[in-house]
Amino acid sequence: MIRSAGRLSTQAAPAVGRSVASKLVHPRELEFLLREFLNVEALIARCPARFGHVDATTALEMIRAGHELAEKEFEPVNRLGDRMEPYITEEGTVWHPEEVVAAQKAYTDSGYLGMTLAEEPWGGLQLPFCVSALVNVPFSCASAGLMSYHGLTAGVIKLLLAHGSEQQRADWIPKLASGECYGTMCLSESHAGSSLTDIRTRATPRPDGAFDLRGSKMWITGGDQSMSESIAHLVLAKLPDAPEGVKGISLFLVPKHLDDGPNDVKLTGLNHKMGQTASTNAGELVFGDDAGAATGWLVGKEHEGLAAMFVMMNELRITVGMGAAATAVAGYSAALRYARDRPQGRDPEAPKSSPMVPIIEHSDVKRMLLAARSYAEGGLALCLTGAEIVDQIQHAEDVSPSERRQLELVLDLLIPIIKSWPSDWGLEANKLAIQVHGGAGYTRDYIVEQLYRDARVNMIYEGTNGIQSLDLLGRKVPAENGAALEALANQIGATIADAHKRGGDCEDFAARLRDKLDLVSDTTKTLLRCAFLGDTTRYLANSHDYMQLLGHVVVAWMWLKQAVIAADALNSGVPNGDGGDEEAFYLGKLHTARYFFNHELPKIDALAHLCASLDDTNPTMRNEWFF
Amino acid sequence: MIRSAGRLSTQAAPAVGRSVASKLVHPRELEFLLREFLNVEALIARCPARFGHVDATTALEMIRAGHELAEKEFEPVNRLGDRMEPYITEEGTVWHPEEVVAAQKAYTDSGYLGMTLAEEPWGGLQLPFCVSALVNVPFSCASAGLMSYHGLTAGVIKLLLAHGSEQQRADWIPKLASGECYGTMCLSESHAGSSLTDIRTRATPRPDGAFDLRGSKMWITGGDQSMSESIAHLVLAKLPDAPEGVKGISLFLVPKHLDDGPNDVKLTGLNHKMGQTASTNAGELVFGDDAGAATGWLVGKEHEGLAAMFVMMNELRITVGMGAAATAVAGYSAALRYARDRPQGRDPEAPKSSPMVPIIEHSDVKRMLLAARSYAEGGLALCLTGAEIVDQIQHAEDVSPSERRQLELVLDLLIPIIKSWPSDWGLEANKLAIQVHGGAGYTRDYIVEQLYRDARVNMIYEGTNGIQSLDLLGRKVPAENGAALEALANQIGATIADAHKRGGDCEDFAARLRDKLDLVSDTTKTLLRCAFLGDTTRYLANSHDYMQLLGHVVVAWMWLKQAVIAADALNSGVPNGDGGDEEAFYLGKLHTARYFFNHELPKIDALAHLCASLDDTNPTMRNEWFF
Repeated sequence: MIRSAGRLSTQAAPAVGRSVASKLVHPRELEFLLREFLNVEALIARCPARFGHVDATTALEMIRAGHELAEKEFEPVNRLGDRMEPYITEEGTVWHPEEVVAAQKAYTDSGYLGMTLAEEPWGGLQLPFCVSALVNVPFSCASAGLMSYHGLTAGVIKLLLAHGSEQQRADWIPKLASGECYGTMCLSESHAGSSLTDIRTRATPRPDGAFDLRGSKMWITGGDQSMSESIAHLVLAKLPDAPEGVKGISLFLVPKHLDDGPNDVKLTGLNHKMGQTASTNAGELVFGDDAGAATGWLVGKEHEGLAAMFVMMNELRITVGMGAAATAVAGYSAALRYARDRPQGRDPEAPKSSPMVPIIEHSDVKRMLLAARSYAEGGLALCLTGAEIVDQIQHAEDVSPSERRQLELVLDLLIPIIKSWPSDWGLEANKLAIQVHGGAGYTRDYIVEQLYRDARVNMIYEGTNGIQSLDLLGRKVPAENGAALEALANQIGATIADAHKRGGDCEDFAARLRDKLDLVSDTTKTLLRCAFLGDTTRYLANSHDYMQLLGHVVVAWMWLKQAVIAADALNSGVPNGDGGDEEAFYLGKLHTARYFFNHELPKIDALAHLCASLDDTNPTMRNEWFF
Repeated sequence: MIRSAGRLSTQAAPAVGRSVASKLVHPRELEFLLREFLNVEALIARCPARFGHVDATTALEMIRAGHELAEKEFEPVNRLGDRMEPYITEEGTVWHPEEVVAAQKAYTDSGYLGMTLAEEPWGGLQLPFCVSALVNVPFSCASAGLMSYHGLTAGVIKLLLAHGSEQQRADWIPKLASGECYGTMCLSESHAGSSLTDIRTRATPRPDGAFDLRGSKMWITGGDQSMSESIAHLVLAKLPDAPEGVKGISLFLVPKHLDDGPNDVKLTGLNHKMGQTASTNAGELVFGDDAGAATGWLVGKEHEGLAAMFVMMNELRITVGMGAAATAVAGYSAALRYARDRPQGRDPEAPKSSPMVPIIEHSDVKRMLLAARSYAEGGLALCLTGAEIVDQIQHAEDVSPSERRQLELVLDLLIPIIKSWPSDWGLEANKLAIQVHGGAGYTRDYIVEQLYRDARVNMIYEGTNGIQSLDLLGRKVPAENGAALEALANQIGATIADAHKRGGDCEDFAARLRDKLDLVSDTTKTLLRCAFLGDTTRYLANSHDYMQLLGHVVVAWMWLKQAVIAADALNSGVPNGDGGDEEAFYLGKLHTARYFFNHELPKIDALAHLCASLDDTNPTMRNEWFF
C-alpha cells in the first residue's frame, strides 16, 4: 500500500490564471506541453487499458497542484538547502536543515513517487511517464538538489518492476513509492569512474540465498541521508565466477538497514560540491570490510546486472535531461522577471533625455532571453518526446511489433541526446540568465547564481556527455545498419511534410530542416564508411561534434513542431485574437522558433563539414605535446 | 619613493627547468610569449629611451621571480580566500584572513605595482606594459580575487599619470605604487548600472578648491577592505552646472582617509558573490549624506571625467582580458595534470583485458584539452598583442604620426574584443577543465571548481560583453569610414603573407584566414550599408554575433602567428630536435593551431551569414511575447 498515493488526484488546486507569472515556470507553458505538444488525449486513446482512467483535464489539475506544492514547499527552502550543506554529525548520521526534510516529506507524502505505478497492485496513479515528467517540472525548477533523490528513487522502482523478484517487488516498491525508503545507484568506484569493466566490488553467495558484498563505491547521490527511514542501494558487483568485462557484472539490492539492525554499509565522507548541495553525494560508501560483509540480494540474473541497470538508466537519463531543462527554465523565468523590472538605458534611436526603459526592450537582452528560452523549452520538448515514446512502447495498443521496434530504435538513438543536449545548452541558458542580470546575477542574492552552479553537474553525472557521444556514434548510429537514424528521419520527415503544408514561416522552417536532415544523412554515411573501413579511432574522434550536430537537428524538429501548433492556433483565430495573452503566447512560440532556425540551426554546417572531413586533429595530438 | 620597488630586478630567481610542470602556467609558455611571440628585444630596440635599460633575459628573470612568488605566496592562500569570505566586523571594518593580507603585502612590497612606472621621478622599473602583463600572469593564475585589487590600483596610477595635477601625482602615485593605498573605480549607481548618463552623484565646489561629494555608488571592487592603509576612490559625479548626458560627468579623487581623520565614505554592505570572493565588492558605498559630504578633488578638467576614466578603462580592459585568459590557463594546467595522472578506460581498439590508460590518451579528453588550450593561450596572445600596441603608441621612436594613428585605431578596435573574447572563451576553457575531471571537478576538492566560479564574472564587469559589442560595432567599426578594420586587416595581412611563404601547414592556415578576412570585410560592408541607410536598430542588433565573428578571426591570427614561430623553430632544427621537450613544445603549438583552424574558425561562417542577412529576429521580439 502506498501511503496517501491517492491524494494527488482528488486534491484539485485552484486553476492558475494564464497571465499569472510564476517564479518557476509559466503555467501556460506546461499546459501547452501537455495538451498541444504532447497531445496527451491522443496518447491516452492509444493506450486505453493503461491510461483510460485519465484525461487531459485531470492531468492538468495534477500539474497545477504540483506546481502549487512546488511553490509552497520546495521553492522557499531551495536557497536554504544550498547554503546549509548536509554534514556528518558526531553520531555518524547526516544532518539536513529540518525545513528541507519537511519539504521532501511533503513531496513523498503526496504520492508523487507513485505517479506512474499501476493501480493494481500498487495503488499508484497509473499516469503516463510523460505526464509524470511534466508534474515534476515545477519541482525541478524549484530545487534540483531536492529532486535528485526522487529521480533516483523513481528509477529504482522501475528497475525492480522490471527485474526484481516477486518478493523483492512486494517488499520494496511500497516503501520506495511512499518515501519511507529512497533508492540509490552504486556504480562508480574510485579507480574506475565511467569504466565499469574495471569495478572491484565482489559478491559471494551465502547459504541463505543472500550475498556478502565487499568493496567501495563513490559518487553516490543520496548515498546516505536522514530524510528517509531507510535506503535501498542498487549495487553493481562481480560474483566469484564472473566472466571478464562488463558481461560479468551482477546487480544487488543492499539495504541500509536489515531487519535486525544496520547493514554493514559505511559512509566515510560526503563530497563538497559546487551546486546541488542539498543533495548528498557520498565521497565513499564502503560495503563490508575484512571482518564482515554487507548483506545484499541478487536482482535479476547473474552476470546480467549491467543490462538490468540500463533499464533504469534510460528513464533516469530522461529524468536528468528534464531536470537540466527545468533548471534552464527556472533561469529563463528569473531573467525574464528581472529584465521586465529593471529600468536601464534607452533605445539607441531615442533622445538621451528620454526616460529609461526596462532592459527587456534592448535588442541584446531580447537575444539572451530568446536564446535561453529556445534552449530551455527546446530541451523540455525533447525530453518529453522521449518520455512519450517510452509510454507508447510500453502501453500503446495500436502499434505492430515492427512499429514498436521503430519506436525503440528512435528512443535508443535519442537517449544520449536527451541526456546531453539539455545539460549542455541548459547550462548555456543559465549562463545567459546571469548575464541578463549583470553584476546582480553574480551575487548570491539572485537565484540565477545558484541555478548556474546546480546546472553544471548535468553534463557530468549519469554518464558524462563524452560517454553519451560515444554511445551515440559508437553504438546507436551503426546499430542494425543505421536503422535508428532512418527511423528518426522518418519521424522528422513527417513533421516536415506537415509543416510544409502550412506555408509561411512553417514552410520556410520545414525546408531548412529538410536540408539539414539531408546533411546529417550524408555526414553519417561518410562516417560509417570510415568505421566500415576499420578506422575506429578516427570514426569515434568525431563523436562529440556529431552529437552536437544531431542534437541541434533534433531540437530544431522540436521547434518546428511547436511552430506548427502555434501557426495553426493563430490561423484558426485564438481566443482574444485581438492581441490578448493567447495570441501573444503563440506569437512568442513562433518567434522563438524563428530564433532557433536563424541563430542556432546554421551552426551545424561547420560541424557537418568537420565530421565529413574525418578530421583527426584530436586523436593525433600527443600527450607530450601538451605543456 | 616607492618602497622596495627596485627589489624585483635584482632578485634573480633560480631558472625554472622547462620540463618542470607548474600548478599555474608552464614556464616555457611564458618564455615563448616573451621572447618569441612578443619578440620583446625588437620592442625594446624600438623604444630605446624608455626601455633601453631592459633586455629579454632580465625580463625573463622577473617573470620567473614573479612565478616563484605567485607559487609561494598566492597559490597557497587562494582556496582559503575563496572559502573565508570577507565580512564587515562589529567595528565596521572589513575582515580578511591574515594569510591573504600577508600574500597581498608580499606582492606590493616587491614593487610589482611600480613595474611600468618611470625610474624618474617614481623609482619604478620602467618595464614595457606587455612585460608587466606577463609578470602578472602567474599571480592571476594563482588568485583572480587577490589580483583584482592590483589591477584596479595599477589603473588608478595610470589615470593619475595622465590626468592628475602635479600635486595629485606627487601625493598619490608613491602611495599607490607601494601598496600603502589601493585604488578603486566608482562608476555604477544602483539605478544605472552600465548607463553612465544617468548617474546622480553630485559634486559642489568648496572655497578651498576641494569638492563636496554626495551620492552612492555600487559594484565597487575593493570598495572597502583592510589590506591597505588607505583607499583612493576615483568617483564619477556631476557638477552643479553640468551639461546633460555623458559630457557632463567629472572625475574626483576621494580618499578613504583625510589628513584629519576618516572621510565621509560609508560602506553599507558587501556583495556575496559566486566567485572571486577574496575580492570585496561594495554593495553600496555612500559618499556624504544630508548632514555632511565626502571630500574630493577634481581630477582632470570639469565635465571631461568620462574621457579621463577611459584612459584607465582601456588598460584595465586589457588587464581584465589577461586575467580571464590566466584563469583559463590555470584551469587548463589543472586539467592537464589530472588527465595525465588519472588512469581510466582504454583505447577503443585495445583488448578489454589490457591495463587502463591515463585519460589523456582518450581522443575526447585530448579534444577538451586542445580546446581549452586554444582558448587560454589564444586569449593570452591576444591581450599581449594589445598591451604591446600600448607600448608602441606610448614609447616607440620609429613610428610616424600616421603610423601611430594606425596603431591607435587597431588598439581601439581590439579593446572590446580583448575584454570579451578571453572572458567568453576562457569560461568555456574553465568549463572544459571541470569536464576533464568528471565528477571530481564538480567538488570543491579540486581547484577547477573555484576557477569556473571566479571566471564567470569576467563577462560582466568592466563593461558587460553586450556593452563591448555595442562599442565595437556602434563606435569602433564605423569610425573614420572603417579605417580601424582596414588597419587591422593590414596587420593580419602581413602575418598571412609571412605565413604563406612558409608552405605546409602555415600556408594552409594562411589561405584559410585570408578567406575569413575577406568574409569579415564583406559582412562589415553589408552592415555599414544598413547603418548608412539609417536602420540603427537592425545594425546594432547584430553586434553580439559580429563581435564573436571578429573575435574568432583575430584569435585565428594569434594562432597563425604562433604557428609560424613554431614552424620556423622546427625547420631550423630545435635543440633536442630528436624528440626532446623543445620539439614537443613547438609540435604542440602547431597542433593547437591546427585545432583552432579546423574546429573553431569554421564556426564563423554561420555568424557572417547571419550578420549579412541583417537578421532582425532579436529587435522584433516583443516583451509581451515572452512567457
